[in-house]
Amino acid sequence: MTETFDIGFLLFPELTQLDMTGPAQVLARMPGAKLHFVWKNLDPIKDDCGLTFLPTTTFADCPQLDMICVPGGYGTSAVMRDDAALSWLRKQAEGAQFITSVCTGSLILAAAGLMTGYKAACHWAWRDLLPQFGVIPVADRVVEDRNRISGGGVTAGIDFAFHIAEKLHGRDVAEMLQLVLEYDPAPLSGGTPETARKPILDMTRAAMTARGFDLRRDEIAAIASAR
Amino acid sequence: MTETFDIGFLLFPELTQLDMTGPAQVLARMPGAKLHFVWKNLDPIKDDCGLTFLPTTTFADCPQLDMICVPGGYGTSAVMRDDAALSWLRKQAEGAQFITSVCTGSLILAAAGLMTGYKAACHWAWRDLLPQFGVIPVADRVVEDRNRISGGGVTAGIDFAFHIAEKLHGRDVAEMLQLVLEYDPAPLSGGTPETARKPILDMTRAAMTARGFDLRRDEIAAIASAR
Repeated sequence: MTETFDIGFLLFPELTQLDMTGPAQVLARMPGAKLHFVWKNLDPIKDDCGLTFLPTTTFADCPQLDMICVPGGYGTSAVMRDDAALSWLRKQAEGAQFITSVCTGSLILAAAGLMTGYKAACHWAWRDLLPQFGVIPVADRVVEDRNRISGGGVTAGIDFAFHIAEKLHGRDVAEMLQLVLEYDPAPLSGGTPETARKPILDMTRAAMTARGFDLRRDEIAAIASAR
Repeated sequence: MTETFDIGFLLFPELTQLDMTGPAQVLARMPGAKLHFVWKNLDPIKDDCGLTFLPTTTFADCPQLDMICVPGGYGTSAVMRDDAALSWLRKQAEGAQFITSVCTGSLILAAAGLMTGYKAACHWAWRDLLPQFGVIPVADRVVEDRNRISGGGVTAGIDFAFHIAEKLHGRDVAEMLQLVLEYDPAPLSGGTPETARKPILDMTRAAMTARGFDLRRDEIAAIASAR
């Protein structure tokens, strides 16, 4: 019999859903995996692109998790100021085997004090804010430091999840899951600030601010200095 | 002012959520895009990995869409026999600019008679069933034939969506969205049956059947012969 491996995603308003749904699709197919989607209550949660999710459990009712995963998104700064969410993360972290994040979720772990002195990944546009919380930013797609494992921006969550699958179940199982999910991506060039054409990078920064893609840097800095 | 581009995803029980959530995350950030998640009623929909979604509208209330997108998953064969879903797809197809699918969603379009004589992509494990519906299978990640655009298995939906973004808004916007979503994937090798190691391919086929990942081939063949 396969032992159950309880994975809990923190679900919150205005999350970037692919930070969570990408890893969820991969991790759900690991032997024994059981997924939980957790928020303070069971009310529907709206993401940043028109989808609405129902939490499966609450902070009060969630069992001890083997792995916590915190996604990011517009809603990041609100969660960084949410004592109930941060307390729940701290409490779960005491018993969890892995404490993980995708995208700006590492800023939430940082605000909970769970990344202090650790290396972490983050979405490229907010990665430089990590040191204000005592976290060491790394510009990799997946970053592992002791039992903290973090993915970079949005789509990096899929690579992060295959990394977890390989770590827990070995290379063959990870390759098997890649085949099941037909993971043979065909990106255009320029998916990172280092590889993007300069005009595209400039246009992207401008659009992220103008069109409200932006998680406000000043809010995060204020949270850091209030600590 | 940007004109609205209405994109409707067919939401159904036991869909493979990443078939939908991957493209949704990309397409939601196209200028003017408005996303709809459509089912016969507004009851919560459970996917294949523990997530529950709320539809945003119903077959009866959904406005005319500019683009229909049908995901796949375990629930595919049930939708292929669902007259209300197939009728709605046919009705929307009359006015839609693009009729699209991800993964085994092309089998649903095929069952609706909307892919007859067209080339289409599909998840590799079910692609060979398309000819029973008069559809020409193509082993590409994204397949375009007139106004039918289809993605291959699961993660191919992300490449499919960037293809749509490039087609509608040009290369610069597509690259911009890749940068926003940090799309610079780092797969292991072997994400397709052609590139997978033979023992992994054999193990995957066995696991897909044994562990209930399987969308039953015999059911789909029966639907084809009943037409």
